[in-house]
Formats: sequence, structure tokens, C-alpha cells
Amino acid sequence: MRQVHSFAAGAWVPPGLGARPIASAVTGDVIAEAGNDALDVRGMRAYARDVGGPALRAMKFHERAKMLKALALYLREHRQALYDLSFDTGATQADHLIDVDGGIGTMLVFASKGRREMPDAQVYLDGPPEQLGRGGQFFGQHICTPLQGVAVHINAFNFPVWGMLEKVAPTLLAGVPAIVKPATATSYVTEACVRLMIGSGYLPDGALQLVSGGVGDLLDHLDCQDVVTFTGSADTARGLRGNPNLLNNAVRFTAEQDSLNASVLGPDAGPGTPEFDLFVNEVQREMTAKAGQKCTAIRRIMVPEAHVEAVIAAIKQRLANVTIGDPRAEGTKMGALVSNTQKNDVIEKVEQIGAEAERVFGDPADFAMSDSRGAFLPPMLFHCADPDAAQAVHDVEAFGPVSTVMPYRDLNHAAALLNRGKGSLVASVITHDGDVAREITMASAAFHGRLYFNNRDSMAEATGHGAPLPHMVHGGPGRAGGGEELGGIRAVKHYMQRTAIQGSPDILTSIGQRWVPGAAEAADKPHPFRRPFGDLVLGDTFNSPSRKITLDDIETFAHFTGDTFYAHMDNDAAKANPFFPGRVAHGYLLLSFAAGLFVQPDPGPVLANTGLDNLRFMKPVEAGDSIKVRLTVKAKTPRNDEYGEVRWHVTLTTQDDDVVAEYELLTMNAH
Amino acid sequence: MRQVHSFAAGAWVPPGLGARPIASAVTGDVIAEAGNDALDVRGMRAYARDVGGPALRAMKFHERAKMLKALALYLREHRQALYDLSFDTGATQADHLIDVDGGIGTMLVFASKGRREMPDAQVYLDGPPEQLGRGGQFFGQHICTPLQGVAVHINAFNFPVWGMLEKVAPTLLAGVPAIVKPATATSYVTEACVRLMIGSGYLPDGALQLVSGGVGDLLDHLDCQDVVTFTGSADTARGLRGNPNLLNNAVRFTAEQDSLNASVLGPDAGPGTPEFDLFVNEVQREMTAKAGQKCTAIRRIMVPEAHVEAVIAAIKQRLANVTIGDPRAEGTKMGALVSNTQKNDVIEKVEQIGAEAERVFGDPADFAMSDSRGAFLPPMLFHCADPDAAQAVHDVEAFGPVSTVMPYRDLNHAAALLNRGKGSLVASVITHDGDVAREITMASAAFHGRLYFNNRDSMAEATGHGAPLPHMVHGGPGRAGGGEELGGIRAVKHYMQRTAIQGSPDILTSIGQRWVPGAAEAADKPHPFRRPFGDLVLGDTFNSPSRKITLDDIETFAHFTGDTFYAHMDNDAAKANPFFPGRVAHGYLLLSFAAGLFVQPDPGPVLANTGLDNLRFMKPVEAGDSIKVRLTVKAKTPRNDEYGEVRWHVTLTTQDDDVVAEYELLTMNAH
Repeated sequence: MRQVHSFAAGAWVPPGLGARPIASAVTGDVIAEAGNDALDVRGMRAYARDVGGPALRAMKFHERAKMLKALALYLREHRQALYDLSFDTGATQADHLIDVDGGIGTMLVFASKGRREMPDAQVYLDGPPEQLGRGGQFFGQHICTPLQGVAVHINAFNFPVWGMLEKVAPTLLAGVPAIVKPATATSYVTEACVRLMIGSGYLPDGALQLVSGGVGDLLDHLDCQDVVTFTGSADTARGLRGNPNLLNNAVRFTAEQDSLNASVLGPDAGPGTPEFDLFVNEVQREMTAKAGQKCTAIRRIMVPEAHVEAVIAAIKQRLANVTIGDPRAEGTKMGALVSNTQKNDVIEKVEQIGAEAERVFGDPADFAMSDSRGAFLPPMLFHCADPDAAQAVHDVEAFGPVSTVMPYRDLNHAAALLNRGKGSLVASVITHDGDVAREITMASAAFHGRLYFNNRDSMAEATGHGAPLPHMVHGGPGRAGGGEELGGIRAVKHYMQRTAIQGSPDILTSIGQRWVPGAAEAADKPHPFRRPFGDLVLGDTFNSPSRKITLDDIETFAHFTGDTFYAHMDNDAAKANPFFPGRVAHGYLLLSFAAGLFVQPDPGPVLANTGLDNLRFMKPVEAGDSIKVRLTVKAKTPRNDEYGEVRWHVTLTTQDDDVVAEYELLTMNAH
Repeated sequence: MRQVHSFAAGAWVPPGLGARPIASAVTGDVIAEAGNDALDVRGMRAYARDVGGPALRAMKFHERAKMLKALALYLREHRQALYDLSFDTGATQADHLIDVDGGIGTMLVFASKGRREMPDAQVYLDGPPEQLGRGGQFFGQHICTPLQGVAVHINAFNFPVWGMLEKVAPTLLAGVPAIVKPATATSYVTEACVRLMIGSGYLPDGALQLVSGGVGDLLDHLDCQDVVTFTGSADTARGLRGNPNLLNNAVRFTAEQDSLNASVLGPDAGPGTPEFDLFVNEVQREMTAKAGQKCTAIRRIMVPEAHVEAVIAAIKQRLANVTIGDPRAEGTKMGALVSNTQKNDVIEKVEQIGAEAERVFGDPADFAMSDSRGAFLPPMLFHCADPDAAQAVHDVEAFGPVSTVMPYRDLNHAAALLNRGKGSLVASVITHDGDVAREITMASAAFHGRLYFNNRDSMAEATGHGAPLPHMVHGGPGRAGGGEELGGIRAVKHYMQRTAIQGSPDILTSIGQRWVPGAAEAADKPHPFRRPFGDLVLGDTFNSPSRKITLDDIETFAHFTGDTFYAHMDNDAAKANPFFPGRVAHGYLLLSFAAGLFVQPDPGPVLANTGLDNLRFMKPVEAGDSIKVRLTVKAKTPRNDEYGEVRWHVTLTTQDDDVVAEYELLTMNAH
């Protein structure tokens, strides 16, 4: 029998006092045991705080991102071992792709976003600086810094790998150590994944620990630097959320609970349209993938009244073709539920649904595998003819291959039914009509963490109703737990403290490592375009000589480029324009002359001008005016071994020092 | 005696069953009564939901922003009435400026940000679209839509006006109705402000209601569409946070609690520096403004060991000059606490602090006004010589004019002491040294909602340790409640649901009212530059003819602009550059020629090109290549009666349809 260990303070700890047996979902045989009441959870927290946290915080975001990438690639290389173990959870090979490959893919997205969307630094700047004083010597800037505690991730049984990795990736990227507590029923898969991650050698000591079994009194010892995340049932969430220590110390707690997710067939998507087939396809897939044990699965199927019969017939036909059985067997499309406990829970919930909806497909009482010792169930489809009067179909989640078709009269009615779920993770709408999409969004988005639209245009690329993507937030209000996970860099911020910083430009530049206008400028060094990436310091500045703009310049530019806009060519017409005093120089002429004033002709560290951001023209320039340009190093981001990106703050001014234009210039500079 | 009414479902309701008397802080006389146990709070919630919410949601962000501005200007016009009433709360005229004018100013900032930073629409786009499929027909976009419930704002006694307005402004801007419940002790001021707001006629019915007295069982009937905010003591927060209905339904709850805020004198800021005087100044102001009854007040004064004596002497001298008395009297610098209950609470807490710190200034037992029936106290300064051993000075908040000086050895020690507050709203550091600022930030920012730095550079403009600004988040972890308020548009999002939208470009364009690449383009209409603002539709597109780039063009441009960078002039040198195949055209040449290809020379609706965003050069162009340009209407924002801003998606492509550059162009277009 497999001994599912914990990994605590750098050591693997076997099951002990209070260990519980774990049965195979397929055979019912006990295959493992997990749990140890003597586990020193307070010591784990101290180890995370004293060893893991400092090591992670010493790294920069880009270093942590590279670590995630290495870890993910290592896991991908060793994923077969995870597949092999996962069959006993009842999952098929297709299900493993969701769990194992989905988890690895999520980690890779965070690795990529960490490099592309976060700085090569230890402080994340949240939004732009805000000038708080008229004179420009007092600014505000929001920053995020890593929490100094530990993230405790309490996960559900259905995704032993993805469920861990989707939380651990942003936690580590933030610079915070994690303690993972998987659901006992599938903890042997999580343990195997943690063994791979620890064995890879990529993680600093204390960055990742594992509790196999119960968390003991860990939650009673957390404080404002810790985070608890929970994925699972609403009942369990309620208990955790009410923990007195969490409440007393305002400890961050986020929950992602299963919810009564719905899918709506658009009024435009009747039989014969590509959308109708797409709808039936998504419903069938959501009902049977992971044997319906997905927190995002479709529990309520909302269909225009006229199409109810057609939809039921089409789904029944699809369900009849689903082969159920041992997930290891060739051709099996749906495996077992995770345990007989879970199976019995579904049967009980289905009875409540059956009291107000007619069963139209699938019955455990008339099911070939009912006598198996494994936790097998058939997919079950119900039809609720009066969803306004019904309660259970909107309230009771049978966490298995169970869903209910219900009719709607019009979009308002559909939205009202959607909202009766009291908050859900996701709702989908299959429609080719943008107005339908907008109307449902306005009426119902406030009740959903995600709204998924699909139609003939997107069907080839769409990722599925039930798939949370690392780019998009996952979580929903109310019944769905009121929490948020994922959502790109938003997820990383869940493990950081946002702090409003106020101070002088110099102070803000020092803290945020991004030059703030008004901070010190160093203009006494050689031209910054002649110095390599590594030599440039924030605030290094080049002040160009000035150049007079002549009417001839304006006319030459107009005829050369073809831009003969009247504001440049016709004094009277220009004067009639609310923005111009008379004929003015082209904005692009000013940008081009500015480049002429700062460019260094000969080969040097500046390899290319790759882009330009936030250009605003602030004052028109007339013939006879002069312009000069100031470039200041604003930010530096290494890109590879050869070069890095420099962001320059550029200001164009006239002979009177009036600001003509401001922008940020991007160059690639050799090291 | 003043009858403090509630405003419920459109009617003013006088005090009734269970009404409580309210005494003047200055005279001790009962001046008002508030409270009515029979108030129909469930009816108020229904009214907000059924009447106020729909009316607010029907408006666009810009309309709500204009409403806020009108309301704020109306309040400013009538503020004298609020000043007059506020003296009885113990506040001085200087305190009224913080409360009344601060509240109005906060509302004006939200009005301004609503116009500038939010769209003229009903959906807020949160972040950019993310391409989720390779073919560009499946995208993700986060949006925010208004919650469909009500925001219940439970406020503290110390800021009866600001405390309401700083929450109501973002709530209304979000499109959500509010029920405000002020602390009873100063509810007569809030009531007067609500009467002004309702009387102004600017608010739709149901947008704002007022509970004077207790909220009854209101919290037991909220759900996932409602929000509860609380400002006040940690004890009260604990009780509210644990409300079973809030926990069971994951109702949004945010708390802002008083905390043990600290100010640190930098190691560089000894006596004789401008920073030393600044520090003493800020400490004295924070101790005595509002008689120390500010959740952001400085409770802990951290000073380098060597300067403890000098700091104590300087603060004592300042405190000795503070005139305490009737806030209506000429020359009064500090008024009364809000009530004798509050005064007695402070005296009790001071005893706990006195057990581990020496009193160095101020003693109620030896205070001229001790016999007054008003709630007067002297400012009290303590010195805690061993802050490592002490507990109460880090834990016990005396919510009055009380603060404790403590020594620190080095910055690590200062940060450790800061963090012993277990989470605070704000900490300040007075330093002229950027390294000190950065070091404290890295060690301590995770424990603070705000870090305020001040020095000789910023002192003329700095807004004060204790002042929450509408631009910056207000709230802190742990002891400070774990919540967030304000912070610009972040605050508006607290009353909206963030939803991840997935779908085709057309669907996302329809929902977000911003054109997504890949969505339909209409290129069969007249040139969009010839059509007025109102006629332009998202997706309207202009496809230019193409223009060949010659070597002569490149040389002409180089010599004309002065940009003779080698990549444009020297084929061999250009080839040696990792980005270029040989001599290439200037990026600015391409932009300029592109303008020549799309500009319409004669006067027309396009008034000016005002800016350019997110320009990226993606492929170099060589002599002999041709370029053409595609402009598509991406977003429209009305600015005034004359014109609006159009954001164009611009793509430059070669003869082979390779993308050369992409950017967003901004123009002002006449209506």
C-alpha cells in the first residue's frame, strides 16, 4: 500500500497517527493511506516564513519566472508517471490532459507573463505615478511587494495536479512560499507531483511544502502576512471562512466553490445552425469530462422554449454514445467518480433534483455497472418544465455527470434564471448575435466570474465552457465563493500587498526603480546612446541642441510625405481650427527632427528604436519656433544575453521651454 | 432637541422606538436624538435594488461623474451649514476643513477621474484584450459591471461627512445605490449632509438612503450583489465580519479599522536638518488634529536612539503651545473628543500604555479642563525606552491625542517595530535618503496600506501623514482591517463585478464597445476622416493606396531630419545589426508616409492628431518595399459639445501584407 507522505520543513514525513485509507475509484480496493495527526504544521509555517520566504524574496520576478519555466518543463518531461497514477482516481487519459498538462501549461503561462509583464525587479508597480502636488515634487505610486508569510492552499479532489499548480505558480512568482494541502482522496497524485518538483532541484528550500491529510490547527496560527485559498464545496468553505483566527486577524481568505453554472442556447441558434451543434457538443463534453466532477461543469441547460425537445433529443443521442468504464481500457470515454462516497452523494442530490424535474436520460437503477465496486455512474439528464417554480435545480449541485434542461421565454427570462444560481463561476451563451451577447452581459455579468461566448466564428479556437485559463479570472460571486484566482498578473497580486507610496520623485524612483519626472537627472556623462546597457543609470539624461523650424521645413515635409493637411498649409484655415494659432508644423515632423537631434549616427550600443508609447502633442509649433529634446533613462529591462530594452522619457520643448510633446521611446541596447 | 431622521424609501423617518440621546461634545448637553427600531431596513434594501439601482445603471459613467460634480459643487455652496453643526462634535474649524471640504474634494476627484479614466459607457474594460487562439478569432477581455444590489456603508463618528462621501462617490460612480449608516454620536451632521444631497435634486430616487440609528437585521438579508463597508474599531469589525449571513453567502465585506500607525525619523534626519523640524511638525499635527481621533493618526513615534531626547523636547514644546478649548472660540487649536464615553475609553487605554511607557507630557489629572462637562483631554506623550519588550504600545490604540516615542537602533530594527503593529493603515518615514526609503519599503511595505515619505524636497506640497487621498488606496492588512478603499478607479471597482469575457472579436466588440482586432471592418463607406464624430461606427475602416519606399526617400529623409543613423545609411553596418537585413527606412519616415497616405488635406471633421499610443515596429522596411496603411475606428470618447476623441487602430503593412508597425492614433473630431 502506497504511503502518501507529507513534505514538512525539508523532510518527507510518512503517514502516522490518524492515517486514513484511500480506495481506488475504479476497483474500490484500498491503494494508499495518508494523514498524520502529529505533523508539525506550526513548524511548517515557521520554516516557510524563515527559510522559504527570504529565499524567494531575494529573487527578482524574472528569476522566479525562469524558475517556473524550468519546473514546468521538468514536469512535462516526467508527466507519464502522473498519468499512470491518475487512472485510479477514475480519470481517463483525456481527463489527465486537463489535469496534468493543463497544470503544466498554466505554469508556463505564468512563467511567460512574469517575464513579459513584470519588471526584472523586486517591486511591482501597480498603475502609473500620480502627481499629487502642483509643483511636481510630491507624487503617489502604488506598488506591490510579496507578503512575508505563507500561502496555504487547500485543494479539491478533482484536479490533484492542476489544482495545485494553478495556485502555486502565481504564489511563487509573487515571491511567497506555499503549503499545499490536497484532498486526501487523490493526494497520492499531488504527492507524486510535489516529489518531482522537489526532486528537480529548481525550488529554494522552504518554497513548497505538502500536507497529506488534515491541516491540524494551522489556520489558528496565521496572520496578516498569510493567505488561505480553498477550492471545494460550499459547506467546507463556510467552516473555514468562519475560523475565528482568520476573522480576528483579517487573514486573506479566498474560496472557489462549485456552483450551478449554466449554458444558454441563443434565440438565434436553433436546429440547423452551426451554433446548435456546438451547444450540444459543449453540453455533452461538460457533463462527461471528469465524470462531471468539474466546478465549472454545466448544471443548468437553458434553451428557448421552442427548442427544448430538439435539444433533449440531441443531447440524449450524444450521451448514448459515451462509453463508460475502466479509464485504463481502450475506448473508455468516461471513467468513475472519485469515490463511492462521492457517488452516493450524487445519487442523493439527484433525488432532490428529480423531485422537480423529469429524468430523460440515465438511471443508476438501470445501469450495467451498478454492481461494480468502483464509483461508476451513468450520465443523467433532467428536464425541468417550470424553472421559475423550481428550487433544487438552481440550488442543489450534484457533483457528477448530471445536468438539467430548462426552457426560457426571452433573454430577460434567461438572465433571471441564470441569476438564480446566486453567483456562479461561469455561464456560457452560444450565439452568433452580438446584441444577444451584450444584452445577457448587461443583465447577468454581475452574477458570474466568467461569461463564455461561442459561435461559428470562434468554435475552431474556443477553449471550452469549462476550462479556466491562466489569463482569465476564475472564481465567482456568492455561491461560487466570492473569490478570484488566475487572471494573469492579477493572480500574482493576490499574494502581494498593495501599498500606496507617497513622496518626492527621487524617493519614488529609488523605491520603484523607474524614473519619475522631477527626479534627479544626470546630464554630465557621455551621450547615453554611446554607453552600453549595463552602464546606464535611471535619470541619465541627454539635452540636445535646438533646431529652428522654418516654413520651408514644413512645406518640404508636406510635399515629401504627402501630408498636406490644411493646418500645415493654409494659414487662414488653420486659424479657424480650435487647436491651432495658424500654420503649424506636423507632429511627425517634430518627432523626426527630434530623432535627428538625439540619434548617434555611428554603430554603438543602441541597436534599434522598437517602439513609442503615450505620445501626446501638447502645444503646436509654428515656423520660427525652435525645438530641443531631452531624453532621460526611465526604465531598463534585460531581454537576453545580447541586449536589453531601455525606456526613455522624452520631452520636446520650445525656445521658451514650453512643452511641445512628451512620449516614451523604446530602444534595444547592447550590453 | 434635534430629531435626526432616517431617509428610507424616499421618505424622511423621525426617531422612534429605541431612540438614543446625543450629547454635545463641548457642553455635555443632550442636543439631539436618533434611532428607530421600527425602521423598515428590508424595505430600504428593496427600494435601493428595485428603484435606485436600475436608475443608476441606466446612466453611463460620464453621466454619473457629472452628477457627482454637480453634487459636490452644491455641497460646497452649502457647506457653512455643515460647519455650524460640526462644532458640537468637538471639532475645530480646521477639523471641519478635513471633514467637510475633504469630503467634497474627494467627490470632485472621483467626478474628474470618472470623466478622464472611464469610458462614456456602461461597461468598464479592465485591462487589454488577450488573444486566446492562434487564428485571432477567440479573445478574452475582463470587464466590470455594476453590482445589482446595494452598498451598506457603516461609518465611524470621526468624519461624519468625509466618511460618507469618500465611500458614496465611488459607489454612485459604479452605478450602485448606497445605504449610509453613520455612527450615532455625530449622525446629525451626516443627516444634514444627506438632506442637502437629496434636496439638490441631482440624485435619482433610491440612489442614497440613510439609517440614523442601528441597522437592525439588514445584514441578515444581503447577498452576493451587495457590499458592506465598515469603518471603526477592530472590535466592532470582528462582530460584523462574523455575521453568519455574510459568511454563508460570501457577501463582500471590507473594513477599515484604526491601527497602530507609526512615523519614523530617518537616521539621516537629526536635529538641525529640515527633516527634523518637519517630523516634529507632522507628529504634533497628527496628535492634535481632530483631537487625535483619526484612524491614520501617529500612535508610535520611532526615532534613532541618539535623537530620542531631542525629539521629545521638541514635541513637548510644540504641544505646550496648543490651545485646547471650545472649538467655536477664537484661537482654539484642539477641541474636544466626540463624547465622554470616548474620553473615558482613552483614559483607560492610556493606563495600559502608561504601564510600559513613561508619561512625558500631558495628564488628565493635572489638566485645567478636567472639570468641564465636555469631553476634553490634553495631548499626552509617552516614552517607551524598551519597545522590544513592550506589548501595549504596539497593540492598544488610545483613540485620542496620545502617542509614544520609542528608540530604534538601525533600519532593520525600525522595520521590525513598524511590523509589530500587525498591519496598519499608514506609516511615514521622514528621510532625504532614497536608500533608507527603499530599505524600509522592502522590509515593511507588506504590513502597510500606505507608506508616506516626506523631506525637504516634497514638504511644500506633501499632503500629510494622516490624509487619505482619493487617488491612493486607504486601508491596510491585519489589524487595519484587511480592506481597501479609494485608490482612484480601484475604488469604483469595489462596487462592480469583474467578469472574464471570452468570445469572438465581434462578440467582444459588441459587449465592450471597443473594436477588437479581427472584428468586422466596414470599408465601404466614405473616408472616415470626412465623416463627423457622431457618424463614425466602431469598425469603420480606411484602406490606403500603397507607396513604394525608395533609397532616395531614405536618404532625403536622413539629410532633412538629421537622423543619419547607420542602419539607414550604411548597408554593411546595418547588416551587422541583429535587427536589420541591410539599410532600412526610418521608423519615423514610415509613420510620416503613413500619415500622408491617410490624411485628408481640406478642412473636415478631423481637427487634430493629438497623440499616439502603443507603437511597435515589427518588421524593417527596405528600399523597394511598398507600404500601405489601414485605419479602423477603435473607440470613441465625447469630450465636449464641439468634438470628441477617436482612437484609431492603425496597421502598416508591406506589399506582402507583412505587418510593419501597429499603433493607436488619437484624433479630435468635430461632432
